[in-house]
Amino acid sequence: MQQDIFIKMALDSWYTHINRVGKLLESLSDEALAAEVAPGRNTGVYLFGHLVAVHDAMIPLLNIGSKLYPQLEEPFIKQPDKSALEKPSFPQLRTYWTEVNNALTLSFNLMNADEWLQKHTAVSEEDFAKSPLRNKLNVLLSRTNHLAYHTGQLAFLKN
Amino acid sequence: MQQDIFIKMALDSWYTHINRVGKLLESLSDEALAAEVAPGRNTGVYLFGHLVAVHDAMIPLLNIGSKLYPQLEEPFIKQPDKSALEKPSFPQLRTYWTEVNNALTLSFNLMNADEWLQKHTAVSEEDFAKSPLRNKLNVLLSRTNHLAYHTGQLAFLKN
Repeated sequence: MQQDIFIKMALDSWYTHINRVGKLLESLSDEALAAEVAPGRNTGVYLFGHLVAVHDAMIPLLNIGSKLYPQLEEPFIKQPDKSALEKPSFPQLRTYWTEVNNALTLSFNLMNADEWLQKHTAVSEEDFAKSPLRNKLNVLLSRTNHLAYHTGQLAFLKN
Repeated sequence: MQQDIFIKMALDSWYTHINRVGKLLESLSDEALAAEVAPGRNTGVYLFGHLVAVHDAMIPLLNIGSKLYPQLEEPFIKQPDKSALEKPSFPQLRTYWTEVNNALTLSFNLMNADEWLQKHTAVSEEDFAKSPLRNKLNVLLSRTNHLAYHTGQLAFLKN
């Protein structure tokens, strides 16, 4: 079916960036990740935690389950970097990154094209009837761009 | 037709980022744009020229015409920043950005879903038969991510 091609393209794009960031993270020491990506800007660890938290929030948004690590929302989404809030350790964060993205992959493998075009959970039935573009695939596309945006910044941690 | 929804989502995503960068560029002086986005990294003007050159190259890649400014390929794609090559002035570059993206918009408005699923010009008929994902829509998705990647870096030019 032709619509499967669209889903496949969107997923390929997502996984390309997930793997790109995954390789970048593997190549960086905890010390490198603790540095600001540019003077006065967010640290690598904040951006990394932010990505984990935003991806974790995709789980309820796509209606495929509950967040694995709801405790990440406050320090990595609601609060800016360098807040006094306690943050997970680097090894914990690296594990969370893997666990969250694996959970998404498992669900993505089970979703067909019709499901991708269903509304996400942050839009009402009424609004979705008016704006059918506010569907689950749109969440995937926008989160892929969000990931690419911060990947461009995380790349500055490399020498 | 359901596939039109996919095209609409991909185009919305593209325009969101084009407008985002457009607003950023309007807010930056030529002096601000001349600065490195982070110490030792590309200048704003190089990244900006790079985006114009990459978008200009989409015109032949999507088989909708010839590049408007082929002279941008050497200084902004083939060569790194700070090469001795002559570069266009800031006002010229700002005009090129507008002209290239307007040319793409005009063509996008005329393309239907079937055309978006046709092969792009950098893939052979034979390879496309094996990999139908190497189509024009995939070019749009990957260039949107490319744009988001560098937008994250250009954002550092803001105070």
